[in-house]
Amino acid sequence: MTLSRRLAAEALGTAFLLAAIVGSGIMAARLSGANEGVALLVNTLVTGLALMTLILTFAPGSGAHFNPVVTLLEVWQGKMPWHDVPSYIAAQLIGACAGVAAVDVMFGLPVFSAATQVKSDWPLLWSEFIATFGLIGVIVGCSRRRPAATPFAVAAYIVAACWFTSSSSFANPAATLARAMSNTFTGIRPADVLGFVAAQIMGASCAAVVFDWMFPLAGKLDLQAESAAVADAGNEMAS
Amino acid sequence: MTLSRRLAAEALGTAFLLAAIVGSGIMAARLSGANEGVALLVNTLVTGLALMTLILTFAPGSGAHFNPVVTLLEVWQGKMPWHDVPSYIAAQLIGACAGVAAVDVMFGLPVFSAATQVKSDWPLLWSEFIATFGLIGVIVGCSRRRPAATPFAVAAYIVAACWFTSSSSFANPAATLARAMSNTFTGIRPADVLGFVAAQIMGASCAAVVFDWMFPLAGKLDLQAESAAVADAGNEMAS
Amino acid sequence: MTLSRRLAAEALGTAFLLAAIVGSGIMAARLSGANEGVALLVNTLVTGLALMTLILTFAPGSGAHFNPVVTLLEVWQGKMPWHDVPSYIAAQLIGACAGVAAVDVMFGLPVFSAATQVKSDWPLLWSEFIATFGLIGVIVGCSRRRPAATPFAVAAYIVAACWFTSSSSFANPAATLARAMSNTFTGIRPADVLGFVAAQIMGASCAAVVFDWMFPLAGKLDLQAESAAVADAGNEMAS
Amino acid sequence: MTLSRRLAAEALGTAFLLAAIVGSGIMAARLSGANEGVALLVNTLVTGLALMTLILTFAPGSGAHFNPVVTLLEVWQGKMPWHDVPSYIAAQLIGACAGVAAVDVMFGLPVFSAATQVKSDWPLLWSEFIATFGLIGVIVGCSRRRPAATPFAVAAYIVAACWFTSSSSFANPAATLARAMSNTFTGIRPADVLGFVAAQIMGASCAAVVFDWMFPLAGKLDLQAESAAVADAGNEMAS
Repeated sequence: MTLSRRLAAEALGTAFLLAAIVGSGIMAARLSGANEGVALLVNTLVTGLALMTLILTFAPGSGAHFNPVVTLLEVWQGKMPWHDVPSYIAAQLIGACAGVAAVDVMFGLPVFSAATQVKSDWPLLWSEFIATFGLIGVIVGCSRRRPAATPFAVAAYIVAACWFTSSSSFANPAATLARAMSNTFTGIRPADVLGFVAAQIMGASCAAVVFDWMFPLAGKLDLQAESAAVADAGNEMAS
Repeated sequence: MTLSRRLAAEALGTAFLLAAIVGSGIMAARLSGANEGVALLVNTLVTGLALMTLILTFAPGSGAHFNPVVTLLEVWQGKMPWHDVPSYIAAQLIGACAGVAAVDVMFGLPVFSAATQVKSDWPLLWSEFIATFGLIGVIVGCSRRRPAATPFAVAAYIVAACWFTSSSSFANPAATLARAMSNTFTGIRPADVLGFVAAQIMGASCAAVVFDWMFPLAGKLDLQAESAAVADAGNEMAS
Repeated sequence: MTLSRRLAAEALGTAFLLAAIVGSGIMAARLSGANEGVALLVNTLVTGLALMTLILTFAPGSGAHFNPVVTLLEVWQGKMPWHDVPSYIAAQLIGACAGVAAVDVMFGLPVFSAATQVKSDWPLLWSEFIATFGLIGVIVGCSRRRPAATPFAVAAYIVAACWFTSSSSFANPAATLARAMSNTFTGIRPADVLGFVAAQIMGASCAAVVFDWMFPLAGKLDLQAESAAVADAGNEMAS
Repeated sequence: MTLSRRLAAEALGTAFLLAAIVGSGIMAARLSGANEGVALLVNTLVTGLALMTLILTFAPGSGAHFNPVVTLLEVWQGKMPWHDVPSYIAAQLIGACAGVAAVDVMFGLPVFSAATQVKSDWPLLWSEFIATFGLIGVIVGCSRRRPAATPFAVAAYIVAACWFTSSSSFANPAATLARAMSNTFTGIRPADVLGFVAAQIMGASCAAVVFDWMFPLAGKLDLQAESAAVADAGNEMAS
């Protein structure tokens, strides 16, 4: 895969992920009216199903990070070179904003509008720390021990975490920023983005250390060997 | 597989798919009363589960397209000869109408009746363009890189897309036409069918070009070799 | 597997299946009150999940039929000798009744009571015909072409069929009889059992002929070879 | 895997499991208001999805028991030495309480508080006996005949059993104790914990005997050989 193909995959995948999160939130809030429980159930199931299908589709392309902390994790593990990080994160941010814009147009809303949901107190930051800690744990554990299950495990984790955390588990700096740009069901006030992102980075860092210890690799990875292994896994599922 | 077996598989599969879409819409609307959110949740989950099981069952037979734009995509990719297109599309249309008729009879409704839901403004056409773009993207990406996951990825995509698009993601000309023939929960006014189909064809065409570039095949396909590979994949899952 | 182990597996599996169907119906109807849509959603999802897990658990034991028409199908296909049929069907009926009794006790209800739901007009019999036709189609298609997917495809089919048919898809004579014995959410009036069973047998017979033609086996099966193949498939998944 | 890594995996996994159970109960009860059916649907789906992803993540580490009766089952089957039991159960109890505390803080509740739901009559104990009997049956059957399916089968069983049993299927002594420590949607009065645990141990014991007979192993296991086999299964999925 050339870098241009990988960046296109990362941008398109993140665009569809944010479209799924924000669009299903709009639709669910419109249809379910007073019952916010049904609306969040729909919103989280759709997010999980979209994430599963997007990882299955784009992982053989770009790795299907869709999330800056996952990109940083991959680099830290030696699976990807540092110099790809800025372009990956740019692709994720551009994709995330494009996805939000695309659904706002579908639903006849302004392309962008600042969200107003206040999400700022300490329990929510603690919640976001735990949510991201768990996400990175699932990614490290599954991708090291049974990578074929990763798309299903990550999607199931996200659905669950949206419900067992009080912040409803953003766990993704690119998604957090983009969700601040649509004043709909899944929004977050722009002023609260920075705190969420900080909690996410701390949760991810702690998880990287803990799960790297828990599921040790035989040694530091050789980039070429790892790429070959990833390609093999893709081929195996594809055969 | 002889052509008669493949056409029978395609017609039966499309019939059950439309029965699932239209029938679950009727049942859900009856039982859920005022809460349209619950009705659409049921309708979309049932559609996704039916699609998954029908692809698993019929793909080793006909390829399980159930959708004219998927048939055209397969031909464009060189996986199927052009001269099979008319009979495939005819089988899909006949199956789709038969499926709608079968459930209308089950629920004591007229066999056919023109739907009345107006679905005609630009945001809905944009929504339908994006919905079909994503569907074809998932099909191309998964079938080229990990075909065993295709039934699950396609089904999950459709459930998600029904919620994150404002048109609720028809993404299938045969289904669009058949849904115009039952004036129930999942209907579309006959006058609006043409616009939807045009948007679907444009979305599918763009996706074919983008994803063909993103996930390149080693070269243009040799029909015989591909058929053998598909048969092998089927055998592998079946062993 | 000895016959006694297979009969015990068949009885226990059918008991848990009926417990899941009837028990979740009782619980859902109690909790969801006025919203029958939510109650049926829960009841059908639970039935599907239970069926999936019971097939995964018991198929390597008894084949996990849990259903007289499936047992007859297996015999007709040459996968099982005729002389095992009476004991299989007896095990299914005993298991089904025991499952219903077990949940009625859990919920503080009479062990058995005649259900009162009238299910007798022609559209419902047509619905039951189609529901069983589809079930047998999924079983024949998947078990001949990709058996590893059968537990998932069958479970997904049943959830979908409960919604797209007006009879809510009993599709199982043993379950139909047992559901007549608990006057709760999932009941059927004893007088209507016979009609449902007749429709099921006709639907299953038609499907057996159609799908046997659609997915041809190389020849009539040799019982020993088939048993070995089934054991291999089990071992493969188990390895 | 060293014992310290296995105990950390067991504690972390049980913590996330209880966080999912209790946290999603709190969130669902807050959002769904009067409709207890929707709240329990969310609570059980989240529990199942969390259990699936946690087994996928942690099983290659500690075996992913998260449940004292499962630990005892593994020892009884010869898959694990007796002298690891106390530390495993301690890790599970500590993890379970930590998970409850973590979500109580997220939602701005007291870290611990005694639950008040009365769960003490005979039908509930019978229900808990059956729930645990089935859980152990699924674990023994799947892990002996098709271990790769175990995470999915166990998770699906738990979702189903929460609905078809009147006790809503605790089936886990560590979870039962921890759920007594948060006076929220999923609680149980501390005085009723002992009865539930007794019923669970009896159900598990019966199931161990029945399913050990139904799915015989070739002989009593050699600990070293089994460990190698488990590692191989992990590697196979991971490749």
